[in-house]
Parts: sequence; C-alpha cells; structure tokens
Amino acid sequence: MIIRQIEVTPVAFRDPPLLNAAGVHEPWALRTVVEVITDEGLSGLGETYGDLEHLTKVRECAQVLVGLDVHATNEMYARISAVVGDVVTDMHGLTGMATQEKSVDRVFAAFEVACLDIRGKAAGVPVVDLLGGRVRDAVPYSAYLFYKWAAHPGAEPDRFGEALDPAGVVAQAALLIKEYGFTSIKLKGGVFPPEQEIEAIEALHEAFPGLPLRLDPNAAWTPETSIRVGRELEGKLEYLEDPTPDIPGMARVAAEVPMPLATNMCVVTREHLPPAIAQQAIRVLLLDHHYWGGLVRSAHVASLCATFGLELSMHSNSHLGISLAAMTHLAAATPNLTHACDTHTPWQNGQDVVAPGSLRFVDGAVPVPSGHGLGVELDRDALAVMHEQYLTCGITSRDDTTYMRRFDPAFTTRRASW
Amino acid sequence: MIIRQIEVTPVAFRDPPLLNAAGVHEPWALRTVVEVITDEGLSGLGETYGDLEHLTKVRECAQVLVGLDVHATNEMYARISAVVGDVVTDMHGLTGMATQEKSVDRVFAAFEVACLDIRGKAAGVPVVDLLGGRVRDAVPYSAYLFYKWAAHPGAEPDRFGEALDPAGVVAQAALLIKEYGFTSIKLKGGVFPPEQEIEAIEALHEAFPGLPLRLDPNAAWTPETSIRVGRELEGKLEYLEDPTPDIPGMARVAAEVPMPLATNMCVVTREHLPPAIAQQAIRVLLLDHHYWGGLVRSAHVASLCATFGLELSMHSNSHLGISLAAMTHLAAATPNLTHACDTHTPWQNGQDVVAPGSLRFVDGAVPVPSGHGLGVELDRDALAVMHEQYLTCGITSRDDTTYMRRFDPAFTTRRASW
Repeated sequence: MIIRQIEVTPVAFRDPPLLNAAGVHEPWALRTVVEVITDEGLSGLGETYGDLEHLTKVRECAQVLVGLDVHATNEMYARISAVVGDVVTDMHGLTGMATQEKSVDRVFAAFEVACLDIRGKAAGVPVVDLLGGRVRDAVPYSAYLFYKWAAHPGAEPDRFGEALDPAGVVAQAALLIKEYGFTSIKLKGGVFPPEQEIEAIEALHEAFPGLPLRLDPNAAWTPETSIRVGRELEGKLEYLEDPTPDIPGMARVAAEVPMPLATNMCVVTREHLPPAIAQQAIRVLLLDHHYWGGLVRSAHVASLCATFGLELSMHSNSHLGISLAAMTHLAAATPNLTHACDTHTPWQNGQDVVAPGSLRFVDGAVPVPSGHGLGVELDRDALAVMHEQYLTCGITSRDDTTYMRRFDPAFTTRRASW
Repeated sequence: MIIRQIEVTPVAFRDPPLLNAAGVHEPWALRTVVEVITDEGLSGLGETYGDLEHLTKVRECAQVLVGLDVHATNEMYARISAVVGDVVTDMHGLTGMATQEKSVDRVFAAFEVACLDIRGKAAGVPVVDLLGGRVRDAVPYSAYLFYKWAAHPGAEPDRFGEALDPAGVVAQAALLIKEYGFTSIKLKGGVFPPEQEIEAIEALHEAFPGLPLRLDPNAAWTPETSIRVGRELEGKLEYLEDPTPDIPGMARVAAEVPMPLATNMCVVTREHLPPAIAQQAIRVLLLDHHYWGGLVRSAHVASLCATFGLELSMHSNSHLGISLAAMTHLAAATPNLTHACDTHTPWQNGQDVVAPGSLRFVDGAVPVPSGHGLGVELDRDALAVMHEQYLTCGITSRDDTTYMRRFDPAFTTRRASW
C-alpha cells in the first residue's frame, strides 16, 4: 500500500469567545485536514493544527512521504525529522514549550493517524484493533467549561451564553451535561483571580455533587498561590491541572497539595518525562496524540506512564471529528487511561468535516466507531465550505492574546501572574 | 480473524554441554511451539520456553483464547493474567527474578507473536511492518561463546570442541566467525574464577582486534570483584553484562567501572525499570520479547529506554527459528537497538522446526525475512521428530544445576560466589 498522493487542506470553523490564560479564542478556529491516498485507492484521514507555520511544514512533509508504504512509519518519522528542522512554535503557548522533538511529532502525527486509518480499512478492522483492541466500548469525556463572553464583540450572542461568574459556569455545565450526558467536569481557569475560580469550583461541587471536577489555570499561578488554592480545594478536585509553570514549580506544588497534579504543559515531549518523574512533579499526564507523535507513540508513552505509576487523562485543543475519532480509538485501547478525556466537541456546535452518524455521545461517552479504520468519512461539501472559510476568515495562526488586546489593550498572558 | 484453534507442541533438540553460572546445559534443550489458526484458515507461529510448569500455563491459556480476534491483544493479556495466577518460576534463574507480571508476559508473548504472524500474512506484509517498518535490512548478531566440554559425559564429542581456557575460547570464536561472519563477540562467563575469564577476554581482544567484546558472568561476582574486573578490562569491553546480582549491587558497580553495564537479570519486567533508572544501575538493557510480553510490549520498553537514554541489546536463550525470526523483525524495527543481538543459533547446529531457506546469516547479520508475517514456515516432519524427542528425552524442565551435580556433586550455582 504505497502512498500515491496526500491532500493537505486547511479549514476554519466558528469558535465562541472562550477565555483562557492566553486571552480569548478568536471567532475562527483553524485545523488542517490530511488525506493520504494509496496506489490501490484507499484513503486515510488525519487532523492537526492549522497554524500557518505548522501547516507549511505539513505541506512540505507531505511531499517527501509519497512513494512510501503506509506501514513505514519509522521511515516517515525520519524523513519528517529531516524536513522539519527548526523548532516550530505556536503563539498561544497553551501546550507547553515547543521543542525539536515535539515539532516533529506534531507534523508526524497527522500522517500516522491517516496511515492507521488506511491500515484499518485494508484489514477490515477499526483503528482500536491496530492498537491492541478495545478495553472499553465507549470513551468517557468531560464537560469542558470555559469562562466566556456572551458573544464575540460586535457579533450576535451564541447559544451558550455568558459565563463570567460561578452562576454562569454552573449554567454552562448544566447545558453541556444535559446535551451530552457528561459525568465529569473540567473548568478552564487562569482567567480570573484564583479566589473567583475557587468560588466557581465550589459552586460546581455544590451543584453537581459526586461529579469529578478539574481546574486548569494554564500555569497562571505562582507555586505559592497554587499551594494555597490546592489546599483550599481539598476534597473537591479529581486533579489540579498545570497550576504553575515548569517541572520544578509543579514538583514544589505537588509536594504540598492534597490532590494529584496533572499536566499538558510541563511534560509535552519525551525529554520532559525523566525530570518530571525524578522530581515527582505530576501524577497525571494528559496525553495528546497530536503532539505526542500519533497513536502508536502515544501508546508507548501510556506504557511508560503505567511503568512509573503515572495516571493518564487526555488533552484537547479545538478540533473536529477526525481527531475525536482518533482520540476515541486511542483511549479505548489504553488500559491505564482511567480519567475521562477532554474534548472541545461541544464548542464546535455541530460544525464538522466528517459526515454525521459515526460519532455520538451517549452518557458523556463516545462509543468507539464501528467502521473500518477511524470509522469516519469526509464530508467533501463541508470540507469545501470550511476551506473557503479558512481562505476568507483572515486568520492564519491562533493568537488569543492579540485578539484579546483589541478589547483590553493592557492584557498580558497569565504566566504565574497570580 | 477469529482464533479457531491453537496447537501447543513441546519439542526437544540436542544441545551441547555449554557451561554457565548455573551449571551446564543438558543434552536436550526444550522449547514450545505455538500455532494459532483462524477461522479463515490462516495460521501463525510463536515459540517459547519448554519448561513443564510454563508449558502447562501455555496450554491452559490456549484454551481461553479461542474465539478471540487476533487483534484483541489487550483482551488476550487480561485472560492470560487471570489464568496464570501464581508466579511461574524457572529452575536456572539465568533470566533474573520471576514475578507475577513476568510470568504473564512469558505466556502471552508466544500467542502475541503468532497473532502478529497472522496479521502480517493477512495484510501481505512482514511483521517488521506491523512494528513501524525496518530501520535496518539485516540484524547483526554476536558470536555467543561458551566455555564447554568436548562432549556430554559418555557421549561422542560434538563438532565445536572443548573450550575451557583462553585458547579454546579463541578457537571457538574463530569457528563461529568463520561460519557466520559475526562482527562482535560475547563470552558467557561465571564459570571459572574471574582471573581466568579476564585472560579469555584478553586473548579474544588480541585475536580479534577491533571486534566489540562482552562478558556475561550471570551475576557470579560480588560488587567488589565486579569493580576490580571492570577496571582491569578497561578499554576492552563494549559492555559488561550482569557482573553482580540485583539493582543496588549493579548500581554500585556501575558507578565505579569504566564500561557500560548491561542486564537481562536485574531488569526483567516493568517494575524493575523505575528503581534501575533511579539508581543508574544499567546503561544497556538486553531486551527479550519472550519475557517482555511479545513484540509490541518490547517496542514499548524500547521507547521507554530511548526516553531515559538507556541503550538496547537483545538477550537469547536456546531457541529455534521461529524465535530468531521474531527477534529479527523486532530488532529491525527498533531504531535504538544499536548493539548486536545475542543468539544461540549456532548451538542448534542446524536443528529447526522451520523449513530451511528463510533465515540465513550474512556477515554476522540476519536479513529480515521477506515473506509475509514472520516469513518462516513450519517443517511439520521436523516438528514431529522434535516432539517425539521431547517425549523420550526424559527432561521436562531445564535444570543445568542438577545435571552438573551428576558430575560434580559439590557444584553450587555461582551467585556472587567470587
């Protein structure tokens, strides 16, 4: 099964004004859809970030993969490493430090997923079966709450409403739980002073007794603040995610707070694992195949975590259905992924590049798609519309900070700000 | 591809009187051949140890796997875990401590390899392609030297001759290199006092200048002796393998000797990795898919080793062609396996359960078999003969020590003896 052609298509879809430590989501979220086609006419899908610098690397790498067998992932990785060269950064910094390895892994992942999609189709099995088979039939996701404005400035309010205080956050949770059946909740913090976010967690704790809660301020706090907040929230959090920057800071907090610390910021590539483990900086790793080098490399990392007693959850950026399918297959095949995964799916508000029907939420969980490969099909009309949106939306790289400064010129990113 | 039937066949083949820290190889080596057959009539091969307690577990587990899809390795692992129950020990102790996880991994591995063989055949690709594709076209193996008697007591001398001193060891190396083209050499030590084994290494160093040398006394030395020997052999060893027992002992030696330490004894299952890494006990892990849970789990361990900067080599017990094929596919797909692998193949002296032609040594390396799956076919006549040998040879578990005591009643195993 030789790769004959690779189509790389950037797309844009509408995104609500979700607030975070880097600023606020712009009106359009970007993604890149990768379609790999073999000489036998099989095609496979991958999805990755849409930022221009990354997209450029994906396009360059697509050219050097033509002619390879879809199984030759070691060779693909080597060729991509040679092309990527320099470190490719993103502008929001919400997934931690950019490194050479992570830059390669991020480009490689989309192609690897597409090749697994093809291999699954050829073998007549879902991708989960190429990863060891399902240990769960459906993958639980958490309700991913955001502080948000009622609308992008100058636009009509979206259907999710404003959430700028505990009542707004609780109402948002109620909406997402009603629509999706989520049985755990994550609040994106780092937006307001910690006291306000503590109040929001306490309100959620009261409104949804027994539901696991997580808070993720994206490293907006100092270690001292993190320790204080962690102690105040004793008994109320499943885990506290990235309260403070960097491995030493997290290690300091981890030693002093009662709940596990989780990360998708201080451990984002393999070189971060040894120091994080040695310093006992984290207890939960939020895996993300988009930057951990695809599904098989993520499985390697999951095995490493099992070996060292680290627990697993899963990280999410804004994404579409190809990624949701890939995340679901990976999580379904990963025995030690015992925390519900994050997903931005509700914020897509129905927009997608995959045809409806194969992905759905049942009681907060996505049943593993039953079709061959990823089990999702491209909706070519939707892809065309979303590509046109990409061409006209005026955004080429995610930049929550600059967008925020249009409305709050004094805004600075919240790195250990509180 | 549902498993319809599993054949489990113990076999015995003639083995020369190879000396080691546990005693001497008996006249027959035992293995178990596993053949998995699917509802579509595809069959896959695995090979594992032949010791009776292990064989019994393999047979029990075979029954609970019928009806599973060949991709469902997570489920297979869970079912095998439930059946294996207690720790299954071997009687020679040359692959380190038996643990619960290792006992399961040892049983699981044979089935996993057989299922990969089937998946490769179904996909029309060699097993190496199911592991990421080849990073090398041929896998280098080392000349695995043993001190040995000229013959089993009471039997005719074998063609390899006696090797009980440096001259005998050098002659053996010359023979193996002439026949196989090996470009590195390993000496199994732990047989004679360390001074004599130092002399043997020095003789090899002189006779084969530039060829990497390894010495493996199977933990026969105290840490003090290990440090002394390590210092005496400075500049002459690629690595020193398991000079002394246990992780703390190895860590003590590692800190004091100039060459890397390697192991297949103090790190033999995942739970050993964290303490060995924390204590910097080893620099090279000798991977062995037979007890690391098959090829995919070995790939996980290889990735972990890359993450922590550990180098890789590969361990070998007496084996046949199914295992050599599996080892070669794994090694060919493992980028960081940069040391030549061990193999007992020369000591098989042509005996095999696989049909000739698919496995060969070229300049000390085995080209990756090009057929689908493992690329080897069962020779059913040879299997029948070797199974008959198993039934009549009178050996049901490897026990080098008891056999040695027939000739040297005072013999004790050499665990930190010198």
